[in-house]
Amino acid sequence: MPISSSAALGEGVCISHPDLVNIYGCRIGDETRVGPFVEIQRGASVGARCKVQSHSFICEGVTIEDEVFVGHGVMFTNDRRPRATSDGGQLLGLDGWTLLRTLVKTRASIGSGSTILPVTIGMGALVGAGSVVTEDVPDYSLVVGNPARVIGDVRTR
Amino acid sequence: MPISSSAALGEGVCISHPDLVNIYGCRIGDETRVGPFVEIQRGASVGARCKVQSHSFICEGVTIEDEVFVGHGVMFTNDRRPRATSDGGQLLGLDGWTLLRTLVKTRASIGSGSTILPVTIGMGALVGAGSVVTEDVPDYSLVVGNPARVIGDVRTR
Amino acid sequence: MPISSSAALGEGVCISHPDLVNIYGCRIGDETRVGPFVEIQRGASVGARCKVQSHSFICEGVTIEDEVFVGHGVMFTNDRRPRATSDGGQLLGLDGWTLLRTLVKTRASIGSGSTILPVTIGMGALVGAGSVVTEDVPDYSLVVGNPARVIGDVRTR
Repeated sequence: MPISSSAALGEGVCISHPDLVNIYGCRIGDETRVGPFVEIQRGASVGARCKVQSHSFICEGVTIEDEVFVGHGVMFTNDRRPRATSDGGQLLGLDGWTLLRTLVKTRASIGSGSTILPVTIGMGALVGAGSVVTEDVPDYSLVVGNPARVIGDVRTR
Repeated sequence: MPISSSAALGEGVCISHPDLVNIYGCRIGDETRVGPFVEIQRGASVGARCKVQSHSFICEGVTIEDEVFVGHGVMFTNDRRPRATSDGGQLLGLDGWTLLRTLVKTRASIGSGSTILPVTIGMGALVGAGSVVTEDVPDYSLVVGNPARVIGDVRTR
Repeated sequence: MPISSSAALGEGVCISHPDLVNIYGCRIGDETRVGPFVEIQRGASVGARCKVQSHSFICEGVTIEDEVFVGHGVMFTNDRRPRATSDGGQLLGLDGWTLLRTLVKTRASIGSGSTILPVTIGMGALVGAGSVVTEDVPDYSLVVGNPARVIGDVRTR
């Protein structure tokens, strides 16, 4: 079931290709649009009137507020030291590691091809395409690069 | 319908996994090969004898000439200031923003994992894997990095 | 057939969404878990108790040992000069180019959104999210950036 009944979808949510997504255990707000080849995991929350474009991955621990743009091929993360197995060689499951959280505030935009470490991205901020965000992004700032650095304010340029 | 009837496909186009793509309203030239998990949008144009590898996204406004290699996980873009909603908080649809165009000239190659801002990539140029291309790429040049910079000429190295 | 009978799967391999992958002609070791939107090509080898997360691409020429973590949206490569066609303008097929190999040693972890050129990644090494790995990575080292550089040792930080 590519859209699990465990997902709580708001009114008017549009998932253009329900057979080409993997969406489960998350919340998606009213009127938000989700493209193909997207995974949204259990425990993630996406606000209202957002766009989540194709090929993006939103993991547990990510909260996205309203009117946020998530470009194509954006990868969120929730762990800075990922491992497949424990010291003892057992596969790590739902526990055995520490979940780190990410918050993307209202009206922020994340450009395509970006990778987001567990941070807070401020209100109205713009993450340029192809960025790797390793630190918090202030409200209304424009960040680019790997690692992403502030290069301006979206209100003045 | 993962391959829409609105797509104009040339002779001998090979889409290896028609159930695992989203292709609509675009033109694809003769003998071009397209891998799985690819989206090619309305208004995009891909030439003849190209390879478009898995996980790539080609948006409206992108023109790809003949014999171009598009690696795996390549993200094209058509907007430098993407937003989900208007100032008034309405979801942006097919209008309400300015489409920027990208041209990839004959025999260029774009390495896997690259992100391409709206630019022109010159004939025979090579974009190294994982690059973020923010400016035009001259013919036959080799560019790498984030942002991508010219580091050589493909005819001499 | 998204999971081809030509793939040799070990015991207890878990492919969570068999209709949303493209897996053929490869070997996957016991208990390894594979997410959706993953392609694993002919001739690739993945060890036991690995995690291969969503949106990743593992090509021919890649050998992944046991207990390796491959994050989301990781792109492997096997060619430093990819082209669509020969000098004569014919599409390149299974031959006509030189396969370069990649080895990922036991217990290494590759962060999400990384691109891996044909290299060796050492035992227990950690590739930070969003990295572009262009050179060999020593055992137990932590590398980040584009191009990826060593910034520490995972045993001491």
